[in-house]
Amino acid sequence: MTSISIIGGSGYGGGELLRLLLAHPAVEVRQVTSRSHLGEYVYQVHPNLRKQTQLKFVDPSQIEPVDVLFLAQPHGQAQHNIEQYASLAGKIIDLAADFRLRDTAFYEKWYGEKHAAPEWLGKFVYGLPELHRAEIAAANYVSGVGCNATASNLALLPLVKADLIDSTSPVIIEIKVGSSESGAEGNTGSHHAERASVIRTFSAFGHRHTAEVIQEMGVSNISLTMTAVDLVRGVLATAHAQVKPGVASKDLWKAYRAIASENPFVRVVKEQRGIYRVPEPKILAGSNYADIGFELDESTGHVISICAIDNLMKGASGSAVQCMNLMLGLDETTGLEFPGLHPI
Amino acid sequence: MTSISIIGGSGYGGGELLRLLLAHPAVEVRQVTSRSHLGEYVYQVHPNLRKQTQLKFVDPSQIEPVDVLFLAQPHGQAQHNIEQYASLAGKIIDLAADFRLRDTAFYEKWYGEKHAAPEWLGKFVYGLPELHRAEIAAANYVSGVGCNATASNLALLPLVKADLIDSTSPVIIEIKVGSSESGAEGNTGSHHAERASVIRTFSAFGHRHTAEVIQEMGVSNISLTMTAVDLVRGVLATAHAQVKPGVASKDLWKAYRAIASENPFVRVVKEQRGIYRVPEPKILAGSNYADIGFELDESTGHVISICAIDNLMKGASGSAVQCMNLMLGLDETTGLEFPGLHPI
Amino acid sequence: MTSISIIGGSGYGGGELLRLLLAHPAVEVRQVTSRSHLGEYVYQVHPNLRKQTQLKFVDPSQIEPVDVLFLAQPHGQAQHNIEQYASLAGKIIDLAADFRLRDTAFYEKWYGEKHAAPEWLGKFVYGLPELHRAEIAAANYVSGVGCNATASNLALLPLVKADLIDSTSPVIIEIKVGSSESGAEGNTGSHHAERASVIRTFSAFGHRHTAEVIQEMGVSNISLTMTAVDLVRGVLATAHAQVKPGVASKDLWKAYRAIASENPFVRVVKEQRGIYRVPEPKILAGSNYADIGFELDESTGHVISICAIDNLMKGASGSAVQCMNLMLGLDETTGLEFPGLHPI
Amino acid sequence: MTSISIIGGSGYGGGELLRLLLAHPAVEVRQVTSRSHLGEYVYQVHPNLRKQTQLKFVDPSQIEPVDVLFLAQPHGQAQHNIEQYASLAGKIIDLAADFRLRDTAFYEKWYGEKHAAPEWLGKFVYGLPELHRAEIAAANYVSGVGCNATASNLALLPLVKADLIDSTSPVIIEIKVGSSESGAEGNTGSHHAERASVIRTFSAFGHRHTAEVIQEMGVSNISLTMTAVDLVRGVLATAHAQVKPGVASKDLWKAYRAIASENPFVRVVKEQRGIYRVPEPKILAGSNYADIGFELDESTGHVISICAIDNLMKGASGSAVQCMNLMLGLDETTGLEFPGLHPI
Repeated sequence: MTSISIIGGSGYGGGELLRLLLAHPAVEVRQVTSRSHLGEYVYQVHPNLRKQTQLKFVDPSQIEPVDVLFLAQPHGQAQHNIEQYASLAGKIIDLAADFRLRDTAFYEKWYGEKHAAPEWLGKFVYGLPELHRAEIAAANYVSGVGCNATASNLALLPLVKADLIDSTSPVIIEIKVGSSESGAEGNTGSHHAERASVIRTFSAFGHRHTAEVIQEMGVSNISLTMTAVDLVRGVLATAHAQVKPGVASKDLWKAYRAIASENPFVRVVKEQRGIYRVPEPKILAGSNYADIGFELDESTGHVISICAIDNLMKGASGSAVQCMNLMLGLDETTGLEFPGLHPI
Repeated sequence: MTSISIIGGSGYGGGELLRLLLAHPAVEVRQVTSRSHLGEYVYQVHPNLRKQTQLKFVDPSQIEPVDVLFLAQPHGQAQHNIEQYASLAGKIIDLAADFRLRDTAFYEKWYGEKHAAPEWLGKFVYGLPELHRAEIAAANYVSGVGCNATASNLALLPLVKADLIDSTSPVIIEIKVGSSESGAEGNTGSHHAERASVIRTFSAFGHRHTAEVIQEMGVSNISLTMTAVDLVRGVLATAHAQVKPGVASKDLWKAYRAIASENPFVRVVKEQRGIYRVPEPKILAGSNYADIGFELDESTGHVISICAIDNLMKGASGSAVQCMNLMLGLDETTGLEFPGLHPI
Repeated sequence: MTSISIIGGSGYGGGELLRLLLAHPAVEVRQVTSRSHLGEYVYQVHPNLRKQTQLKFVDPSQIEPVDVLFLAQPHGQAQHNIEQYASLAGKIIDLAADFRLRDTAFYEKWYGEKHAAPEWLGKFVYGLPELHRAEIAAANYVSGVGCNATASNLALLPLVKADLIDSTSPVIIEIKVGSSESGAEGNTGSHHAERASVIRTFSAFGHRHTAEVIQEMGVSNISLTMTAVDLVRGVLATAHAQVKPGVASKDLWKAYRAIASENPFVRVVKEQRGIYRVPEPKILAGSNYADIGFELDESTGHVISICAIDNLMKGASGSAVQCMNLMLGLDETTGLEFPGLHPI
Repeated sequence: MTSISIIGGSGYGGGELLRLLLAHPAVEVRQVTSRSHLGEYVYQVHPNLRKQTQLKFVDPSQIEPVDVLFLAQPHGQAQHNIEQYASLAGKIIDLAADFRLRDTAFYEKWYGEKHAAPEWLGKFVYGLPELHRAEIAAANYVSGVGCNATASNLALLPLVKADLIDSTSPVIIEIKVGSSESGAEGNTGSHHAERASVIRTFSAFGHRHTAEVIQEMGVSNISLTMTAVDLVRGVLATAHAQVKPGVASKDLWKAYRAIASENPFVRVVKEQRGIYRVPEPKILAGSNYADIGFELDESTGHVISICAIDNLMKGASGSAVQCMNLMLGLDETTGLEFPGLHPI
């Protein structure tokens, strides 16, 4: 059994990691830290884990050496302690944004601050298996992914990989998200009475996850517009782009099917009947699937590419465990088999 | 025009008062206080009031004399300043729980603390017009009502007034409530991700509003059990009681219809067809109506009496404005005509 | 008192008309029709109207002459009976899509069918006062508006009126809508268990309301993408466009403020603090306001213009009553004063 | 591998069975029927099963012999075909209400109709392992359970088994349920616009599931009151009863802990801190857990016992698979390990 510990286990990403790793057949969770819930049972914070574990939260200073260390802290903490963490574990997977960007200047531009450990940026691989499967399998240090970036990247991947879009036209991505994106701490607008039934655009331009899309897709003329809707888990990214002259619907079908066949957690959803004809995050809660689909206006070349994910799974902890599987030489779907619920 | 000011205008009760009073044809809102939002426009906190008023929040120390002063602060503050407030206005309506109970010992039992101005308890009239219309019309000091108490009292009123229930059997009231009940400040469980889709029993026994039901209904063998559900505004109280021997459905019809005909804001809802056959808070958002209904198991004498209200209207600010109308000699429905929305 | 009747009163648009007109100080509702609810009390279908009216639904054949006739039937019916309706009332306001488009060929293109009364298309004025105030005031026949078209038109109006956008770039409008848009009959996806928590794109291209935007805004390179979210009432339109070179944020401020100052039901929402910084339909339920706002990326000229409305009010019945007010020479805000609720 | 087929696979119970059985390590799903979706892929109806199976729905007439046959049809169908089904499989598990009651007259009283196969009533075991584990393990025919009955029975089980309640006092059970209870077909009130944000009491007395509680708990003076709330999956049963004189909180702790320790899917939830202090269905979606808790008013002997379940899991398909595991000699938790999600 591979030994695992988690730094920062009381947030939503940490809770989801715990759910996945406690049930994982090839690993053993040794320790999980939380300063704010020190000494409490894990199930008192993550009530779905009652009768699943008797683990209690410990202080970060108590962490012992393990095979794999997951970092699930708020952004900006891991970069200050990365040397210490590296002394504790040969393999590190960080869910935060600290090591997602490869370029120091690019990091500083998007995060508006100096990076505390710029020499480590180059040591990490961006942790989305659909983009970097082989590198991840060979890596010791893997970053997390931004949930909105992941939905955007997977919406664009078929178009970019098959070189179908006109790079001179802007790519406009409209993203709708659930309330778990704001983290377990929430914010002033998270109160249920203020947050229920919203359609609230909280970031028109400049969301930090944009940087990950620019880096990974190589598309620079791009914007992400973020709108909160009434849902707990889920992201839907709708990318508007212009296809190259002559690109037809059949070319898109081919590109999307190729991505789905190469990736066990990607599905094409494009039905002519039934209620669920397009990708929807509703049915993905708890699942690691990314559902993708498209619509092309052949008269104008305007393509709409859609990707739905669970922000806590494929957009965070699910992808992280998938990376761990690759790093450990396991089947990448191990422990990630839950397909989601219907209805929900 | 009657001049009005509001102490504590940034909470949900204060916001609802502002909505009602700004549109009220017979009064003028002079000042509204908020320490936490001092200097902000009222519409920045209550966005529905944009283009309705250019008022800004002022400090409580700036309040000038007016005809009627509304107190909409958190519980426990008004009792410390009541003398000062009484020097500013001849008529005071307090939405908080400070002056709802008539008996000092009873207050101390339920609130677990000494009352800071016990000599004032006897000067206030309990502010539910359906129970104390004439006294309110003659009063200078009127208390607010607990929202859960109001739903409970109006569920029981037809049974108690017509003397239909067996007082030796317990009265069990199950109450389901929306998230605005927790106030604008919320609590740790108010985060949308934790509060959405809940059926969460947060008080099995001993809710403070129980005291108001005991006082007003004269029923002592009574319990209120509180459960939060996914809704912003609304309370449904379901009272289980035992009718006296021989009481039949027609007696209940008569008792309920009598209450509805005596009170402009009470309606009996008991239909055989359609979607809306029973009282439901869903359609009452923004309305001052209290919808009541019942079901009797004639084989056992078990009666279920239901009352639905909007906790911020009939359960708080709506009843307060209704009291003000009575105190000013106006038609009690003035400014309270909004009937609610369907669908919503 | 102006006499009013409503053809088709059991749907959501009809219900909202009834709510507004029953409380309207200058009109009297005489008759309201429904075949499916013939003989039922209006309040059995629209439960918010209990104790507001004792009207019952009558058969359309029973309608008598009145001053103003509202048509609130499903699309495609009014055009078959318009001659008969015109014989009953000098003024007609149709909420459906039958008479929104001015050009027969354009109608046929977007609706995929012949129009049954093409000679009437030219007699109607498009019923959005913000676009055609003077013509409506002088008109006898006024059409309804598409709710999605209205949100789109009002999002674009400041940009188009001030001639700020580059017409060679596409205008991409992302629209998020609530469940009342599907009408009281709903569809297979309307079941709560399937519709709750959705982010469901049900029309990527080609929504019929697009035609109204093309007609009214004169922008042809335009697309509307429709996504259903978990909300009952509300539309948010987010329009992405390219401003002309040199257009800056201050130009946009000026254009948006101009529209808001000319129109009593338009507000600019663009705050730096608080929870409600941008237009949101959440707080507009029951209100006739259209809230507009914008964000400009000055580095690229990409402007995002947002408009939020209640689809049943400004997007349907509210605008219809506003038109009626204009047609009757009343203040256009009469009977439309409800500002909306917070929280809700 | 044990071979399995499902009669009636397009409903919510059938879909949940499919999710569980397709992932079950010891069984193989051979066929699944649906008349309304004949020939469609299972994943077109249950979108969570995309990429999980290529099965298509077949006609019931095409079903071939298997080891275990699950019946997941609407109530009232299985009893007409039970002989035929018995000829196809040695073991049958019926999710519907056809074979839940042991006594013909009792069935007729509660269902208001003759039973079509009364001689089969005695051959079935009531399918709740927490009540009949040993009999189920030895049975060939096992009935389903009512979801509301299950929440009620498990709320009462600790009290009844330890003989703690006064049988002369009535037991009043208040049940709150989600929208998936109305089945995939829904009803007129299921439209999202009518069903969202409800607190709607749809059955005050006489719900059919009451019969199962009377039969299984041996408590006759009992009522179930059903209220729909805004949630897709979940039931919360709150049972009010009177304890025998002298029964104290520690006796209840002992009784509840005993039930939880005897049953792998029962948990006691009674915390002093954190957000999740009591049983809540919110965190049980997809899980087979039944969470139980209680509160005692020692001054009156009024006990409130609460049980939360997922109506489609422990209240239907989860218990059915648990029964299958017992019937096949497997560990009863096999294939039912999913613990639920947080947040959700």
